[in-house]
Amino acid sequence: MAYRLTLEDLPDLARGAALLGTGGGGDPYIGMLLVAEELRRGRTIDLLSVDEVDDDALVIASAFMGAPTIVVEKIPSGDEAVTALRELEKHLGRGADAIIPMECGGMNSMIPLLVSARAGIPIVDGDGMGRAFPELQMETFGVYGVAGSPLAICDSNGDTAVIDTGADNKRLEWLARGVTVRMGGVSYIAEYPMRGSEVKRTAIPGTMSLALNLGRCIREAGEQHRDPFEVLAETLATTIYQHGRVLLAGKVIDIERKSSDGFVRGTATIAGFDGGETITLTFQNEHLVARHDGRVLAIVPDLITVLDAQTANPITTEALRYGQRVKVFLISTPPIMRTPEALAVFGPQAFGLSEEWRPVEELSPVS
Amino acid sequence: MAYRLTLEDLPDLARGAALLGTGGGGDPYIGMLLVAEELRRGRTIDLLSVDEVDDDALVIASAFMGAPTIVVEKIPSGDEAVTALRELEKHLGRGADAIIPMECGGMNSMIPLLVSARAGIPIVDGDGMGRAFPELQMETFGVYGVAGSPLAICDSNGDTAVIDTGADNKRLEWLARGVTVRMGGVSYIAEYPMRGSEVKRTAIPGTMSLALNLGRCIREAGEQHRDPFEVLAETLATTIYQHGRVLLAGKVIDIERKSSDGFVRGTATIAGFDGGETITLTFQNEHLVARHDGRVLAIVPDLITVLDAQTANPITTEALRYGQRVKVFLISTPPIMRTPEALAVFGPQAFGLSEEWRPVEELSPVS
Repeated sequence: MAYRLTLEDLPDLARGAALLGTGGGGDPYIGMLLVAEELRRGRTIDLLSVDEVDDDALVIASAFMGAPTIVVEKIPSGDEAVTALRELEKHLGRGADAIIPMECGGMNSMIPLLVSARAGIPIVDGDGMGRAFPELQMETFGVYGVAGSPLAICDSNGDTAVIDTGADNKRLEWLARGVTVRMGGVSYIAEYPMRGSEVKRTAIPGTMSLALNLGRCIREAGEQHRDPFEVLAETLATTIYQHGRVLLAGKVIDIERKSSDGFVRGTATIAGFDGGETITLTFQNEHLVARHDGRVLAIVPDLITVLDAQTANPITTEALRYGQRVKVFLISTPPIMRTPEALAVFGPQAFGLSEEWRPVEELSPVS
Repeated sequence: MAYRLTLEDLPDLARGAALLGTGGGGDPYIGMLLVAEELRRGRTIDLLSVDEVDDDALVIASAFMGAPTIVVEKIPSGDEAVTALRELEKHLGRGADAIIPMECGGMNSMIPLLVSARAGIPIVDGDGMGRAFPELQMETFGVYGVAGSPLAICDSNGDTAVIDTGADNKRLEWLARGVTVRMGGVSYIAEYPMRGSEVKRTAIPGTMSLALNLGRCIREAGEQHRDPFEVLAETLATTIYQHGRVLLAGKVIDIERKSSDGFVRGTATIAGFDGGETITLTFQNEHLVARHDGRVLAIVPDLITVLDAQTANPITTEALRYGQRVKVFLISTPPIMRTPEALAVFGPQAFGLSEEWRPVEELSPVS
């Protein structure tokens, strides 16, 4: 049975999505306000499990594209992402039966909910990234053979484009990124039109309810004076993400950040409270690799998150500050994100890193 | 009656189109070879006068977009511009009845002929620029109320986009330019879908046969040992372009050129043979203004052309060299290109010039 999202769910979902954003993906807060407004107006959002999607249903992925820093200054009206959906439907000559999030981490957990509410169609509980990634081709949909094309794109002027690069999802990213830059650095897209049967084969299942669940755990642990990190690890153990552990508790002692080519790149250095280990995190929007003395402790696509040491509230790379007390929390990705095909698209080499991927549970076993 | 273009017409048409390119628009030579190949294969190209177009006919403008210097290195297969037409037709849900050139000057005189031959539909004898201009919104179609959107764009990979910015043709240029840059600096477009009645109201009529005629005049004058510049002036007097005159015969004594933002900008200085006047031409792909001692002698949208002093063969700004013997030949634009609405879109201010437009026949009267 589909689960109907409530107003009370939204802050938990946003918190969990920020965690799965692994430092990037944009703060879900503004998106959450827009979704809350839809629910207050009486619109509904039904979360459909991957198994519940009809094999013949037309499912379309929804997202914003561009710089999260710009979304905060140029708040969407909510029409943009719906117009992108409508343009793609017009191009396909068929209406969508359901929306699927492109990415469950960060701000993109919210945009598809907005579209679901406005369009009056359910949203699939799953996504194509299982976290946040910076580029459109980094989706399990594409990894397992679904074309991102045709992609419809819309901006705050209502200007639109429908882009088709056949089976080449990397070139789709390239062209759509160019349009997004000219649209002012942020756009709203509808892409990866696919059948329900393809969703079942290629989506990472249950990631929206996972975000909701993780966000709720963090809140409830605080209310119940329990250790939120223990609760997170216990909860993850029951999911396809399985392994979760604190790598280090410490203080941010150095942060270096620069914006280029539409990305925020940099490093953060965190020194353990006990005066012991010092960990360096390298990020490109999202955290890519955690190292100690040059040794890799976790590497993309496994999740490296930085959470408030006390509350476990997620901290984005943009919000990292000198002196913050944090815990670095590692999460293993599900098997569908660890195949050779998947690693070729969003493994270390896709980000220009020289190290090979190895599972986080081997690199940093719980001792 | 429609005029069926012959193989023999092509070199004359290319020469005349290069002249109307006013230094820019790209050398039509490669395009001409592609069109000749179509005719040799038995395909036909019928040139339809503006009056012959049915009021209800769907007419679509065809062109390449981007840097002419790149077209020479990345020769089109001929499929690109046809695919752009097909994409736009698919989007509109209707096939085109005729093609119209976006621009009659330079390489873009040839691309629509190629599309006409391949698609098996006639081409309208007219265009939207009456010369060459660097940007998509600089068309009489748009000046008089036709939307350039939707625009279909295609590259050598067969990748496509359909862009829609409603009535905003300047924003259409902006987005399509962004896609063109990402497509490698050159693309092929179909745009300004319109009715025959709109063609009659907004196109500059007869510009393809004008190009053919001017190119033939130059060739025949050479064969008949007549002064080609006199013949050009006589021919123009019978057309809506009306005034043509030699401003100066001289030698190129300085040429400065730089490429930026996808344009070639610079100045050329020409010293009269008689040791008298020195003229400076400022160009942005096309020649924009001719000055002597700071005094304006001709200014865009009037045509400033640089022709070989002996043969009157057109010389593009790219081919200008120190020591060349040339004549600067001025041509007045037709009245449809001189209204306040037209000057707002492609008058001096549209190119960042501070001078007001004044008719070339007043600035540089035949003495």
